[in-house]
Amino acid sequence: MDLNQELERVAGLIEWRLDELLSSEPAPSGQERLIEAMRYAALGGGKRLRPFLLIESARLFGVAEVDALDAGAALECVHCYSLVHDDLPAMDDDAVRRGRPTVHVAFGEATAILAGDALQTLAFDILSRPSTHGDPSVRVELIGLLAVAAGVQGMAGGQALDLAAEGETLGPMEVAKMQAMKTGALFSFACEAGAVLGRADDLARGALKAYAAAFGQAFQLADDLLDAEGDEEAVGKAVAKDAGRGKATLVALLGVEPARARLKALVGDAEATLAPFGDKGGTLKDAARFIASRRA
Amino acid sequence: MDLNQELERVAGLIEWRLDELLSSEPAPSGQERLIEAMRYAALGGGKRLRPFLLIESARLFGVAEVDALDAGAALECVHCYSLVHDDLPAMDDDAVRRGRPTVHVAFGEATAILAGDALQTLAFDILSRPSTHGDPSVRVELIGLLAVAAGVQGMAGGQALDLAAEGETLGPMEVAKMQAMKTGALFSFACEAGAVLGRADDLARGALKAYAAAFGQAFQLADDLLDAEGDEEAVGKAVAKDAGRGKATLVALLGVEPARARLKALVGDAEATLAPFGDKGGTLKDAARFIASRRA
Repeated sequence: MDLNQELERVAGLIEWRLDELLSSEPAPSGQERLIEAMRYAALGGGKRLRPFLLIESARLFGVAEVDALDAGAALECVHCYSLVHDDLPAMDDDAVRRGRPTVHVAFGEATAILAGDALQTLAFDILSRPSTHGDPSVRVELIGLLAVAAGVQGMAGGQALDLAAEGETLGPMEVAKMQAMKTGALFSFACEAGAVLGRADDLARGALKAYAAAFGQAFQLADDLLDAEGDEEAVGKAVAKDAGRGKATLVALLGVEPARARLKALVGDAEATLAPFGDKGGTLKDAARFIASRRA
Repeated sequence: MDLNQELERVAGLIEWRLDELLSSEPAPSGQERLIEAMRYAALGGGKRLRPFLLIESARLFGVAEVDALDAGAALECVHCYSLVHDDLPAMDDDAVRRGRPTVHVAFGEATAILAGDALQTLAFDILSRPSTHGDPSVRVELIGLLAVAAGVQGMAGGQALDLAAEGETLGPMEVAKMQAMKTGALFSFACEAGAVLGRADDLARGALKAYAAAFGQAFQLADDLLDAEGDEEAVGKAVAKDAGRGKATLVALLGVEPARARLKALVGDAEATLAPFGDKGGTLKDAARFIASRRA
């Protein structure tokens, strides 16, 4: 199957489930705006790469995709909450995302802060429900893993490092660490959550974590390459944002060609980690190649 | 025992446990500021009323306070996160809390947003750990209840109603609903969580939820009375904030004397709900009287 089609199909499933989960929240008078902002933030766009990785990882252990959908939706809620808060004027101050006004531009700052807060809460709410998994010990394990991935040791800590780094000169070690926390932690959760849902053994779980680490780095490097190369191409596009802000990227530190070589090596690493799964690992291998070659 | 002393003793335990939980987060280079802001927000002040209610509710069913401490600390993390975000310039724009600069004044807005986010995450992290309770199904029940209390149906939804109400004329029904969500939901969680930890039967759980509802309303009314009455007393105190902002309170709608009578009735209600617990309910009865009579 073509990976692009498969990504779109799974993204459609996640979109549908998120819509359901957000529709089941009654919106009595006065709260419509908050719910609307949460829906705006969570629906209508995005490749849903993180839930895709979760679903595909779970599939390795025979978990039907419908049984991994809620965990994927919860993960996407955390990702979307982080985008809403990162875009705020006090943070990255971004006015446009996915071709639309960001949440605070469309709904105001107060509602954007609240919508982000409530999306994070919703993620843990979803994970606590039996629809995520019948076994409470599986649900509580997912919750603990997501909290660590999203918190000080992960995403929030990475964003703090990113903020602290503006105007500073970071070396490649520091940039890699910041990115591993800020974006890598949720990719890592995605793959590990699939293993938890599938009650995988430690070996398989370790292999998936190694895959996620390579995938996360490749994703970030590809993103930074797109940003850097856009600069040399069409004028007037919202690219070269990172350089303009003085944000450190590995591409800036390594140079474009060495970064490209590193990206290729990372995809090779990601593929190699999947060896224990044989043919079943094909989709995840394709996903690693896909994110490395994307042009938008 | 004197309730004031008991409150201080339990507050000291919560402070100690929060300090431990926040110290166990390693703070590598670049993240010190985030951790420092989280500690600033969560430590050093507050009556810790919510964890107190949780611990005292659990005690009714024979749960030792040390076994309710982590659930109480998690609840306090959510309360503190909400204070940090509510104080932000885009929200209530408060510069002082508990006699100290608010988090965004002390650490900047970006760090305040992140610290609030990470405190919410930490709350669910704590609840997912075996130290909260040995049985995963108890932990996952606490997580689900806290998520509902903190989310769109509870605290965050109430804050959205509060924001939407500025400049509007709310009736008493709407004010009561907003307050039940914004502040009542966490009090309700506190008492219900105690019942969950104590594996209480539905009857006892229902009684505690009724107590929490009366307690929450009494707490809010006492708070509003303090704000309204301070106005007539000393000049130069940061009181009459609500009226100055055009925020609707039940005191403004009912008048001071009727509000006082209503407060007394609510304390009576709270006490009555505790009848099933006999003498064991004494501390919670004292707590309802205490918050109704506080002068600061």
